[in-house]
Amino acid sequence: MADKRYTTEFFLTAAEVNSQREMPLSRLVTTIIDTATAHANKLGIGFDRMISEGISWVLSRLTIDIAESPSVNRTYRMTTWIENVNRLFSDRNFEMTDAETGRIVIRAHSTWMAVNMSTRRPGDLTPIWKGFDMVDGAPSGIDNGGKLLPLSGSDFEMSYRFAVSDIDVNRHVTTRRYIDLITDLWPLETYDSMRISRFEVAFKHEARYGETATASRMAHAESPETATAQIAVADTPCCIARLHFSER
Amino acid sequence: MADKRYTTEFFLTAAEVNSQREMPLSRLVTTIIDTATAHANKLGIGFDRMISEGISWVLSRLTIDIAESPSVNRTYRMTTWIENVNRLFSDRNFEMTDAETGRIVIRAHSTWMAVNMSTRRPGDLTPIWKGFDMVDGAPSGIDNGGKLLPLSGSDFEMSYRFAVSDIDVNRHVTTRRYIDLITDLWPLETYDSMRISRFEVAFKHEARYGETATASRMAHAESPETATAQIAVADTPCCIARLHFSER
Repeated sequence: MADKRYTTEFFLTAAEVNSQREMPLSRLVTTIIDTATAHANKLGIGFDRMISEGISWVLSRLTIDIAESPSVNRTYRMTTWIENVNRLFSDRNFEMTDAETGRIVIRAHSTWMAVNMSTRRPGDLTPIWKGFDMVDGAPSGIDNGGKLLPLSGSDFEMSYRFAVSDIDVNRHVTTRRYIDLITDLWPLETYDSMRISRFEVAFKHEARYGETATASRMAHAESPETATAQIAVADTPCCIARLHFSER
Repeated sequence: MADKRYTTEFFLTAAEVNSQREMPLSRLVTTIIDTATAHANKLGIGFDRMISEGISWVLSRLTIDIAESPSVNRTYRMTTWIENVNRLFSDRNFEMTDAETGRIVIRAHSTWMAVNMSTRRPGDLTPIWKGFDMVDGAPSGIDNGGKLLPLSGSDFEMSYRFAVSDIDVNRHVTTRRYIDLITDLWPLETYDSMRISRFEVAFKHEARYGETATASRMAHAESPETATAQIAVADTPCCIARLHFSER
């Protein structure tokens, strides 16, 4: 039987980090997605197997608790496992440890949907799970986060037109570009004094080449270190995020 | 004695490619830089050793001949070696092969400068080469390209303000952002019918957070499939590139 838990190890080089000598949020999110993809491939439930059933994995919701920001010239281990699965959704969890200290630096929870590739409507995960006994059942250990609602106002917004370098193999905007646009809603000085300690994102709609997006943010009245951010094309939100900043 | 040639192997996944299912130009350039860095570290002339002499490596000039565009789900091998070195410059070459066919898909030539980290003026490479016998002497096998001159007009230009996600550990704009901005000067349709078969770039000046750049391009009158592109802040060019497109 395939391993219920899957682990990859990586060394964070100077070329990969941001001005604060830390792993950029967009890279953390893509590492989470890549680790999920590698594990799914190993279990035989990767994109190839999905396509033979006419369905595809789509990341719908991701919540990350960042206890320590991963920093330059250190080795980290990312472990993932499947918490549960039903006909429409699968929950997958992540734990990232500092390889030297053994401390858990990040915990994350993700929800993946099956999408029918012809209709672009929700697909059925039942066929790929039949005969498999791979679900670990262990929860993420974090609060998976409440519903993310579209912004109704904003403290700050900016406009961006999706260009060639933002487009992936499916002709949609990459996750990296969404996350970088959200990161860029705050000035460099914010990141010098604060760090993102929690990040939640819901993917709602796929944007395409040449569309102009509005990226906006609004701090929460009751807790100003928490904010909602949104990338929208016309009036359609493509993704909605909630960020919590902590003092360094 | 350390190896005169250094090789890394990588598999190009679907998550890493562009809309044409090929390696993005920015990723090719960063892979070239990362391979050079890894080899320099192995030879004992990496950034750490340089810093102890008060100097640092800066990529000044890069020319890439792309015989075949590296494409998705294939394994490639990138090999690098030092062609020569003098007090101020070192030339380093690259060859990328398709691991399955053994065909050379890419050849590249790069020139690196030493910069004195206190004065930001040209540094002296002599101390780090003393006692080393590592220079291979083999040329790149391509035309290293002529001088790249600033644009005096343009067919098309766009403006971009460097944001948090564009800034590296040294608080300068990343090479990736420069190359992506150059790539984005052409529409998606151009890349559907054409491919970049040769790319030359000269790095002139480091841009910083919050600066607004103008990216511009101009086709050559005598050969319209060749163009010069430039990223400038105010009137200072940060990098100048020459691209040659070929029909697919």
